Amino acid sequence: MAIMIRRTGTTAALALALLSGTLLAQSPATSGRPGIFLNAAEVAAIREVADRYPLFARSLAAARARIDQALASPIEVPPPGEAGGYAHERHKQNYRELYEAGLLFTVTGDERYARFVRDLLEAYAGFYPTLGPHPLAQNQAAGKIFHQALNDANWLVYAAVGYDAVRDWLPPSTRARFEQNVFRPMVEWLAVHGAREFDRIHNHGTWATAAVGMIGYVIGDQEYVQRALYGTRHDGTGGFVRQLDLLFSPDGYYMEGPYYVRYALMPFFFFAEAIERNQPELGIYRYREQILKKALYSAVQTAFPNGVFPPINDASRTMAITAPEVVLAVDVGYARYGADDNLLGAAAIQDQVVLNGAGLALARDLATRAQPPAMSFGSVEFTDGFAGRRGGLGILRSGQGQDATMLLMKYGVHGQGHGHFDKLHFVLFDAGREVVPDYGFSRWINIEPKYGGRYLPENASYAMQTVAHNTVVVDRTTQSGGREDADEAIWGERHFFDAGSSRVQAMSARARGYYAGVDMQRTLLLLRDGRLPYPVVVDLFRLVSAEPHTYDYPLHFRGQLIATDARYQAHTTSQEALGSAHGYQHLWTEAAASADSTFRFTWLDGSRYYTLTSAAAPATGVLFARTGAGDPNFNLISEPLLLLRRQAATTLFAAVLEPHGFFSEAEERSQEARGRIRDVRVLAADQEGSVVEVSGAGGLRWLIMVSNGPASATALHRVRADGRTFEWTGNFSVEGLQ
Amino acid sequence: MAIMIRRTGTTAALALALLSGTLLAQSPATSGRPGIFLNAAEVAAIREVADRYPLFARSLAAARARIDQALASPIEVPPPGEAGGYAHERHKQNYRELYEAGLLFTVTGDERYARFVRDLLEAYAGFYPTLGPHPLAQNQAAGKIFHQALNDANWLVYAAVGYDAVRDWLPPSTRARFEQNVFRPMVEWLAVHGAREFDRIHNHGTWATAAVGMIGYVIGDQEYVQRALYGTRHDGTGGFVRQLDLLFSPDGYYMEGPYYVRYALMPFFFFAEAIERNQPELGIYRYREQILKKALYSAVQTAFPNGVFPPINDASRTMAITAPEVVLAVDVGYARYGADDNLLGAAAIQDQVVLNGAGLALARDLATRAQPPAMSFGSVEFTDGFAGRRGGLGILRSGQGQDATMLLMKYGVHGQGHGHFDKLHFVLFDAGREVVPDYGFSRWINIEPKYGGRYLPENASYAMQTVAHNTVVVDRTTQSGGREDADEAIWGERHFFDAGSSRVQAMSARARGYYAGVDMQRTLLLLRDGRLPYPVVVDLFRLVSAEPHTYDYPLHFRGQLIATDARYQAHTTSQEALGSAHGYQHLWTEAAASADSTFRFTWLDGSRYYTLTSAAAPATGVLFARTGAGDPNFNLISEPLLLLRRQAATTLFAAVLEPHGFFSEAEERSQEARGRIRDVRVLAADQEGSVVEVSGAGGLRWLIMVSNGPASATALHRVRADGRTFEWTGNFSVEGLQ
Repeated sequence: MAIMIRRTGTTAALALALLSGTLLAQSPATSGRPGIFLNAAEVAAIREVADRYPLFARSLAAARARIDQALASPIEVPPPGEAGGYAHERHKQNYRELYEAGLLFTVTGDERYARFVRDLLEAYAGFYPTLGPHPLAQNQAAGKIFHQALNDANWLVYAAVGYDAVRDWLPPSTRARFEQNVFRPMVEWLAVHGAREFDRIHNHGTWATAAVGMIGYVIGDQEYVQRALYGTRHDGTGGFVRQLDLLFSPDGYYMEGPYYVRYALMPFFFFAEAIERNQPELGIYRYREQILKKALYSAVQTAFPNGVFPPINDASRTMAITAPEVVLAVDVGYARYGADDNLLGAAAIQDQVVLNGAGLALARDLATRAQPPAMSFGSVEFTDGFAGRRGGLGILRSGQGQDATMLLMKYGVHGQGHGHFDKLHFVLFDAGREVVPDYGFSRWINIEPKYGGRYLPENASYAMQTVAHNTVVVDRTTQSGGREDADEAIWGERHFFDAGSSRVQAMSARARGYYAGVDMQRTLLLLRDGRLPYPVVVDLFRLVSAEPHTYDYPLHFRGQLIATDARYQAHTTSQEALGSAHGYQHLWTEAAASADSTFRFTWLDGSRYYTLTSAAAPATGVLFARTGAGDPNFNLISEPLLLLRRQAATTLFAAVLEPHGFFSEAEERSQEARGRIRDVRVLAADQEGSVVEVSGAGGLRWLIMVSNGPASATALHRVRADGRTFEWTGNFSVEGLQ
Repeated sequence: MAIMIRRTGTTAALALALLSGTLLAQSPATSGRPGIFLNAAEVAAIREVADRYPLFARSLAAARARIDQALASPIEVPPPGEAGGYAHERHKQNYRELYEAGLLFTVTGDERYARFVRDLLEAYAGFYPTLGPHPLAQNQAAGKIFHQALNDANWLVYAAVGYDAVRDWLPPSTRARFEQNVFRPMVEWLAVHGAREFDRIHNHGTWATAAVGMIGYVIGDQEYVQRALYGTRHDGTGGFVRQLDLLFSPDGYYMEGPYYVRYALMPFFFFAEAIERNQPELGIYRYREQILKKALYSAVQTAFPNGVFPPINDASRTMAITAPEVVLAVDVGYARYGADDNLLGAAAIQDQVVLNGAGLALARDLATRAQPPAMSFGSVEFTDGFAGRRGGLGILRSGQGQDATMLLMKYGVHGQGHGHFDKLHFVLFDAGREVVPDYGFSRWINIEPKYGGRYLPENASYAMQTVAHNTVVVDRTTQSGGREDADEAIWGERHFFDAGSSRVQAMSARARGYYAGVDMQRTLLLLRDGRLPYPVVVDLFRLVSAEPHTYDYPLHFRGQLIATDARYQAHTTSQEALGSAHGYQHLWTEAAASADSTFRFTWLDGSRYYTLTSAAAPATGVLFARTGAGDPNFNLISEPLLLLRRQAATTLFAAVLEPHGFFSEAEERSQEARGRIRDVRVLAADQEGSVVEVSGAGGLRWLIMVSNGPASATALHRVRADGRTFEWTGNFSVEGLQ
């Protein structure tokens, strides 16, 4: 199958027009080659104006400081070692230095940088030919320098940029030695020996194709470029273009989630930039209706207001848009697709730019602002699956910049090997913190004494399990029985997503087939009432079954229990694990209660209080638990959670989550430690709709009605209960907001 | 007994000379009164130059913003309520606003501020006469506005400054009403009805005397001033001067510790300033060889490099030099005692100044610096007890500014009702964090649902207990059996303190009588070896007894266990409390091991690793525990600790604590997750001395010799063991550092 790149023609030209002069035009470098990342025109512009743009000047100074330190240190090319160990980190450092020193040479003309790149490549030219497959590779395509081929591809991507910068400066004999001893054998290893990985539609494949294509342009081997673009068979069944087709939904959402797209953005944008500079006729930035633009935006749009990515699926809790991969994508995306205030806001959080014309353009625009714009993405929904028909990810936002509140619900696909069993899971970010968090992965990444820095056994036994998330667990078992193949075969279903009003935003989704005979529907609303200081979350989680089940509603939190009206009994002299499987074996039972009436629970996180008020249901079990059981190697992080347990066939968990008050221990100030919402009552819940009344201090009384049938903006719904009739039009209605 | 204030004459004049022009001279205010905090000359200077000094301008603008908001809100004087509740907080807010609005009126001349002060005092003039003793007072001298008289004294101190500012502007009838309805009855309540508290040598007495003395100057009642200075009997057995004599050691160390001196600094400096401005002939700032200067410096010198006070004794973990009380003391101390770079550094952390000539002087000096100086106090020892003969507090520091390492050992007095049973306890601060922490108090301060914001039962049952600290527990019981009276009757003994070399610093102290028949000696060294990236702690804790005991050596930490060579067994399905009393009932036993050889344990805290390497001793028990047991109301904070347990009569715990490496999860970088120290061996330990060998990677080998006899800089020590003879002169010697 041959892939044809569509040409839409106008957009790229438009983007270029936004840039000053010839910054990114394909003007020849000194040598006559366009280069893959930085050309002569860009260098001239940088030399002329960089001082005037503080962000660029700072980024350049920081790079010089780093590389000047490297120049003062001996070159080291240690024998291959284990993941995260010294040799591993040294080789990573080496490729970053090849890249940055190369750019510095081009920008400054200072030959010390070129000599450093030459000497370091010379070391690899002696070293690489001595290597066989890495001895510590495990269940993965082996690299030679590193334990996995993926890291070797990282090396080649960075090194290609560094080599591109010095190639014309080197004598032909040296070039030939580097190409024969390092670059060509590395392509051989990645794209011939490793053909299977190379053709894989996966971020590993993206890195490999980018590496091979980029070095192809640099050394002038067009076969490498073709192989990279269209796969080892040159037919488009593998390769970079196929990855653009399949790895993203039509919205640009990346199926493995934000943590992994962060990583993949780099090869996508590095190689795209190399293609655009060398084969502009391919129109790579226009391909698939600007899928790279969508990929960039969908990545940064999933970020919390502070720039950290939500740690959904296997993900670190701290990966952020400040990662160098995202810096590259934001800068190149800004330059190629046109100016955008939210990208300027993202760059202000990143506080660095790449050292080429794209970084210069962004820094220039930021320098014109007295105050950098806030990164204030609004509410947004992403469809999931390559065709966009497999559920999605909903994000509701309220407020601006770092003060914004963000509510996320996950109702897409499993997400391949790094996916979690967490359909209808939600995360709440407020006041600069992940207040109702996702545990993320269980991994001490790159910390060698912690299982070599790899994924820990607790990643599968806890972090992936349903109970580790904020979604209902049925019969104390994980969704799809914890089987990845079964979970990959199904996906969440979008019910509706409506962010049309800043006062009432709502999203709703269904999950069927995750538990035999149990249908689930979750509707989350983000409400703004003038009487309350912060946006409030309303959660309606409906479970429908013909048979009775045990439904566990977990709420993970951080911080300290402040108050609850449940009369709990704490386990004070001994405590037991909450279960023996499906993640429950990792939870210590700290306290338990039973509640027949409305349940209220307040905790403190940072400088704000949060109160969950949950509608009454007979004999609701209340469990306070903490991670850390079943953890023989102290791998887990100790964190608390609440779990509401009901025995029922069909039921509705209706709850309000209210941020309130203020606490500063340093100032010894506490205000409004008790919330204003007093009660949540389910007035009706049937197949037509759910009707819930929320009441609070000062006469607050909201009536919330949500359709449980098919989505429709115009359908009239009528529900009767207790002699009252509730009517509304459309998917939902909220009355009583002020 | 009459207290005579000594006059040394020159110092105050010297201090004044350091100030520009007449800023703090006793020039008459417009009215002819000198005022108690801000005079006409200061106002003139502020109006002329404040704009040029950014810190002053910022502080003034922030005050205006706060008070402008208050002007736009209704005045509220609610009926007295519980501690930390709404009424409590409202009345606190009111006195802060009285104070700040008064100063703003004086500085700006804007009568809106004067009217606000008047209207608020008018409300109190109607309200205060209706009040009886506060109904919710418990075991404490009752206030009327607040539950305790202490808070009423706070109110009067602040209000005196506010009233001072507007008094001349008010018609005589209004003045008379305020004085008859509020100020005089309040003095009656604090200094006549509350005579016992007033005369008490304690921070409560300081607040009461300052309040009464300050309002005495304002309303021109010299009897109030005399009573405040010399006690209710005017004979110096109580009163402010007596407090200056007894509450501080000769070094200025405050016996209750930094958290409480922070609070006491305010009445000391407010009243001193009022005295100096009205009765300069008393020479209050020269009194007791400038004890107020020493009090200020000893307070800020105990702070961690980030400005937070070590939470020793009952203390919050976050109280810092940024507290308004310390801002006042730093500014006034700077103006009265002379310029000092460390105070400028402290002010830079505080980022605010008081709105009088002192604040202006400091802001002026800071404005001349391109970069504010770092607050870099060196190592320092404070003696404890009013005569300075009851042990002390040792602080060793290495490095500069916020990057400094700080090691603190506590070997003074119990510290009254807020004291903890923690003799020879140590705290380590490194890389901006409290790495080996003090738990502080168990209190959710001012959070009303948490026991009214008061001290929790767990404060006595856990936070005060020995095992909650980093000092050896004998036979699982708390020092002095946990009896305050017994603990007050004894104190630690200084052995030596030597910070003469930046490469080897050491402090040593003894504690006898805390456990029957067991003498304790702890020597802590802070070493700087050029081969190691950070300063390293060496800990030699020696216990001497004729009888065998169980010795528990606890090390509290935060963060995550990374590695240990102890083969521990974790409790994975159930866990038990570690004991039933003396704080052990609050510890969950997470894992246990037994070690005969050197014990190594590495944890991660923030971006740095820490490794404890402890010398081998036969059958050493290793326990990993976590706070949270015996906690029926979720009052405790969940934190881990390590406990080494030995059965012995006489023994030496010899350990090295080594910071190393780097971790950034966001950057996915880990370096040197394993430390370089390999072994610690006790070569000899007898009544003459202890000899320990520390060895590590790269041929590192230190020989550490410490005298166990009386302190002497010149004594020659000789210890024989295993056929070797070790000799050194003085209290200690370290060989092998590079």
